[in-house]
Amino acid sequence: MQRRLVPLAILLSATSAPASAAEGMWQPRQLPAIAERLSAAGYRDDPAAIADLARYPMDAVVAISGCSASFVSPQGLVATNHHCAYGTIQYNSTGERNLLRDGFLAADLAAELPGDPNQRVWVTDRITDVSAQVRRAVGRARDSRSAWDAYEGEAKRLVRACESEGPYRCEIYTFHGGAEFNLIRQLEIKDVRLVYAPAGSIGKYGGDIDNWMWPRHTGDFAFLRAYVAPDGRPAPYAKENVPYRPKSFLRIDADGVAEGEYVMVAGYPGRTNRWRLAEELDDAIGWSMPTLAESNRELIRIIEDATRGRPDAAVRYAAALAGLNNTMKNIEGQLEGFRRGGGVAAKRAREAAWLARIDARGDADARSALDALRAELARARERRERDLRFGLIAPPNLPGAPRFNREGSPVAAAIDLYRLALERRRPDARREAGYQLRDEPRIRARLEMFERRFDEATDRALFEHRLRRYAALPAQRRVPELDAWLGIRGDAPDLSGLPAKLDAFYAGLTLDDRAQRLALLDAPPARIEASGDSALSLAVALLPALQRIEAEAEAQLGAELRLRTVVLESQIAFEASQGRVLYPDANASLRVTYGNVVGYRPRDGVQHLPFTTLAGVAAKATGVDPFDAPPAQLQAIAAGRGARHRDAALGDVPVNFLADLDITGGNSGSPTLNADGELVGLVFDGNWESVSSNWVFDAALTRSIHVDIRYMLWVMSEVDHADHLLRELSVAPGD
Amino acid sequence: MQRRLVPLAILLSATSAPASAAEGMWQPRQLPAIAERLSAAGYRDDPAAIADLARYPMDAVVAISGCSASFVSPQGLVATNHHCAYGTIQYNSTGERNLLRDGFLAADLAAELPGDPNQRVWVTDRITDVSAQVRRAVGRARDSRSAWDAYEGEAKRLVRACESEGPYRCEIYTFHGGAEFNLIRQLEIKDVRLVYAPAGSIGKYGGDIDNWMWPRHTGDFAFLRAYVAPDGRPAPYAKENVPYRPKSFLRIDADGVAEGEYVMVAGYPGRTNRWRLAEELDDAIGWSMPTLAESNRELIRIIEDATRGRPDAAVRYAAALAGLNNTMKNIEGQLEGFRRGGGVAAKRAREAAWLARIDARGDADARSALDALRAELARARERRERDLRFGLIAPPNLPGAPRFNREGSPVAAAIDLYRLALERRRPDARREAGYQLRDEPRIRARLEMFERRFDEATDRALFEHRLRRYAALPAQRRVPELDAWLGIRGDAPDLSGLPAKLDAFYAGLTLDDRAQRLALLDAPPARIEASGDSALSLAVALLPALQRIEAEAEAQLGAELRLRTVVLESQIAFEASQGRVLYPDANASLRVTYGNVVGYRPRDGVQHLPFTTLAGVAAKATGVDPFDAPPAQLQAIAAGRGARHRDAALGDVPVNFLADLDITGGNSGSPTLNADGELVGLVFDGNWESVSSNWVFDAALTRSIHVDIRYMLWVMSEVDHADHLLRELSVAPGD
Repeated sequence: MQRRLVPLAILLSATSAPASAAEGMWQPRQLPAIAERLSAAGYRDDPAAIADLARYPMDAVVAISGCSASFVSPQGLVATNHHCAYGTIQYNSTGERNLLRDGFLAADLAAELPGDPNQRVWVTDRITDVSAQVRRAVGRARDSRSAWDAYEGEAKRLVRACESEGPYRCEIYTFHGGAEFNLIRQLEIKDVRLVYAPAGSIGKYGGDIDNWMWPRHTGDFAFLRAYVAPDGRPAPYAKENVPYRPKSFLRIDADGVAEGEYVMVAGYPGRTNRWRLAEELDDAIGWSMPTLAESNRELIRIIEDATRGRPDAAVRYAAALAGLNNTMKNIEGQLEGFRRGGGVAAKRAREAAWLARIDARGDADARSALDALRAELARARERRERDLRFGLIAPPNLPGAPRFNREGSPVAAAIDLYRLALERRRPDARREAGYQLRDEPRIRARLEMFERRFDEATDRALFEHRLRRYAALPAQRRVPELDAWLGIRGDAPDLSGLPAKLDAFYAGLTLDDRAQRLALLDAPPARIEASGDSALSLAVALLPALQRIEAEAEAQLGAELRLRTVVLESQIAFEASQGRVLYPDANASLRVTYGNVVGYRPRDGVQHLPFTTLAGVAAKATGVDPFDAPPAQLQAIAAGRGARHRDAALGDVPVNFLADLDITGGNSGSPTLNADGELVGLVFDGNWESVSSNWVFDAALTRSIHVDIRYMLWVMSEVDHADHLLRELSVAPGD
Repeated sequence: MQRRLVPLAILLSATSAPASAAEGMWQPRQLPAIAERLSAAGYRDDPAAIADLARYPMDAVVAISGCSASFVSPQGLVATNHHCAYGTIQYNSTGERNLLRDGFLAADLAAELPGDPNQRVWVTDRITDVSAQVRRAVGRARDSRSAWDAYEGEAKRLVRACESEGPYRCEIYTFHGGAEFNLIRQLEIKDVRLVYAPAGSIGKYGGDIDNWMWPRHTGDFAFLRAYVAPDGRPAPYAKENVPYRPKSFLRIDADGVAEGEYVMVAGYPGRTNRWRLAEELDDAIGWSMPTLAESNRELIRIIEDATRGRPDAAVRYAAALAGLNNTMKNIEGQLEGFRRGGGVAAKRAREAAWLARIDARGDADARSALDALRAELARARERRERDLRFGLIAPPNLPGAPRFNREGSPVAAAIDLYRLALERRRPDARREAGYQLRDEPRIRARLEMFERRFDEATDRALFEHRLRRYAALPAQRRVPELDAWLGIRGDAPDLSGLPAKLDAFYAGLTLDDRAQRLALLDAPPARIEASGDSALSLAVALLPALQRIEAEAEAQLGAELRLRTVVLESQIAFEASQGRVLYPDANASLRVTYGNVVGYRPRDGVQHLPFTTLAGVAAKATGVDPFDAPPAQLQAIAAGRGARHRDAALGDVPVNFLADLDITGGNSGSPTLNADGELVGLVFDGNWESVSSNWVFDAALTRSIHVDIRYMLWVMSEVDHADHLLRELSVAPGD
């Protein structure tokens, strides 16, 4: 095995194995091209095997909402993170029967619980390069706005054709800012049920305190099951549905991995910004991140205050709160990383080197695209405060827009209903993306989830807060339609009438009645306009403003599509000439990343070891949330039960481990595979030092955190006695 | 070299050296008896060499107030910790000329600054076992109070004879609760000057945040110099004094130590409680520690509030504040350690085993001594709240009583003056310990330091707070004399008159006039009683109460002396039969401890490495106190200057290192010696996990923290350009 010169920190920790901080979220088709690197890291098979979506193990890797997952049994059993199944666990929880807290184990298939209405399993089964036709369409556009329209039109056409082939979800994915487009076809499984989740004090052990932290002791895993109609085709939840039989499912290596060993992760990383301009990073550090962190802090405080002492209300906002906390801590980590790292300076320097090159070569196209792109970004900065404040009240229909607890918001529900009614008057191909025929089940699912995510007192506190923050904008940045509704004008307007306005709003709200709400799914616009419901009236009043704002944003997106393509192609050519690794930014499409099990040195004098163990679970236990390990678990640890899952070198059962592969949000729940493609864990987090890697990859400090397969099996056998599941996984229960 | 089975954590960190968590603060005479252990740890010389106080290196090891130190040049140069020289640095600092902040380097002997009046260097030159005569005297006593008197009388007699031999300080040291008594003779050097201290941002880098923490990057070292009269005899500060020529001085090993290497520390550990009863530990955990921590927290807040924005006042309380913070954090660490550790349970179990043995053997003496001791402890618990609250106002003259900023307190100064005047009427041998002829210079020194430690506004805030806390005691626990002065009675008394009382107190204070204060050193009691000074009047009023309280405490001390001897001799016999290591609790007498340079595993998944480096100093630097590393230092680090001090394995200059030897407060400043007895660093702290080792030694987690000799030399040469000092240390400056 090839060894290279590695930093002392890594050498110290990985004494018996090749170590390489492995930057790169590779498109599967790229893997044969990096065969040498894979083999140097310890991969033994033919890279072509993991490039082929139709073969093991890639055909067992799936996406679920916002996360990744994998098939692990012939009966459609799906392994993912506890935090990825959180929405479904929450959907089945109430104040009295709290599955988030107590966990859940279905005794048999019949006892499995329906997933939340948006719970899906998507199996990527084809990736088609459609760059030529999409770029051609965009290239023909005469301005930015029509470039976006051209892109959307072409995308809709391709998606429509693709989805007509069967029960698929098809999407266009943009790579390198528009240099490459893929049409990705995924089998969409709509009946996904909850099979097993450990208690929250295992699955979320350490909670927000340990989130992003090492050492970590979180049993962040759960099992879902994919169901299809008896004829084998995907279908919505129905009692008579049967378990889906995947083409293949991952084999489990119950012996797990050792320090230094090769591991790879296949999954759906959401978004990275490594190809962004240095000025965009500056802007993120100087404005977006601190502003979003501050906004989240406010929302968290409001939700906590409003739900205090009301467990039923608290459960409704638990998922939203988890998301807000997660994002906030992530931002803090990113800012800390940027303060710490020379990464920003390196990014700036690399960009400067590229600029020097294009200027030296007189590459007028790249230079003028760059200048135009910068001008676009400057214009967007003018609008951003309004877009944030207004968007938190009336969420726009734009890619990447934040959608905090959209399911539980009356205004968002009303906008959904009104938009859908309006769009339905047009032929499907001309409807807005997000409100086409194909989207209707998802809209219905959101409306069905409403009452599990809505609590009037909490919603009112949030709504009032947002309106006040909006009203604090300078008058010329505000939106006339919303000003009119609020009855305000000028800078620092008088809001003394707001409480009465809110009294009236919630008194006039009928959308919180489920039957009422769902009935409106088929209503024509006129009925909605005349409904008298206060949220619908507001939606009707705000829609013109929303569409105006969306049009501005789409013009910007169109401009970026045209300009970034030119800029990035030039940058890619430059970087390639410098021998730099080349993979596109994450865009929620299927990627493979590889690396080794290895610790790191977070700071001078401290080494983070690559494994934690059961002893550490017990040592952290205080009995108080989030360190309230279940007594049964602590007894099992104290009694040394489940010794067959012990690692000989560690002398204990491994709980979590570190690897130096390259992941980001969306990768959560991804299977971690060994060199033989066998399941050895699930990735569930990055370390604190890694979060700024979304912008600038830091090889010395970036680590992924995995729940060890041995801990999963140990919890299943020694704490939850899930013997029938262990048998389904082909792992013998008990000893 | 013998190797034993060691925990994985240590093995991982010390791969090339013997590892042994080395419990034991050994009396020098014990060292030959543990020769095998020393040699197993890596010591190469004859243990007799380090048992002999008259030989190198022990004759170079000295005590300074509250700390340890060592001679490092033939010119009486003394190396110790920055925090041990803190009082002297502070004494020479003002708001404008702030040596605590800026550091100090004397260009030559003439520029060296006088130490604070209490700054001494003590060289232990003889240890005599006087157990037989002291035990005989105590044994003849008929009750507890007279046992204490007998002990004090015998001690005074022995000390008096010893001190008549020359310029010595002699003291009786009690070992094993009274089973052994040593008469220790120390040459007392009274003119000690400040030679060199790095800037506070090096010497105290990390401040209270990093205190007790690893990783650590503190340059906690300074140099003093011992001066004597031209005739070679110790004398108070005088311009014509000359540097003291020690019998020997430590050789420096500028190459330092490596991971796994043998190290030993010789110094003056203050106090441990490892031989205390389990119920005493319970009591410390349940009452003393939390109460003292709370009290310190209050005092810290008061001092910070009172001195805010007044740098001159802040400097006066800097040393007191450092002590309060240090103690408070120490207590927190101890409590955390007891919560974490099975150590308490182990102590209880060991005691139970011993009890079972003595009961089985029908050892009535030990059993009845134990029962009587427990009854004594129960009685002391009745008094403790009063003793604490009253003692903070009027400090008692008792061994081990807390003496927070005694030098800057008008009431304490007044009590000193009045007691001295009273005692002077008696023959010296019958004066109270602490107020004998031999103590007069120390009393004068305290009175001289007064104005450097006193600020009226701060003192008033502290005084008022203490009076209020005292007044909150139940009436039957209060002291009539102080109640009368305060004009209060009953429970929850009326304190509305307190501000006026304090106005009058500070208006009537004349002791803050230096001449006035020092003149009273020779005043007869009648003049003090009639002086009209408000503090003296209070002292006169309180003295009877103080003496009553002292008598109660002395009766308890006498009882403990008689009872612990019996209990501990029985326990020692039992422990020896179990093969346990046997060394007495620390009692501020000279001890030797040995071990190895080794990291530890503070928690599952984390390894603390044994060395920190310059890179870590730079990484911590924020520009803000306590991480305000001097720009000159950061430039020297960035420029890679002083490369000759680099450690090849680390690739950088080591800053601090860890060893597993056994120290406690009082060891600060002790020389750290290698297997050849050469100086390789100074010990300055224990790690956070070690602080509970004062009660229960935890081999896996207890580590000492040392400043590496290479960092000391690097700072001297690259930051402060102390070339003449480096030459005096026989280390070539510059490269």
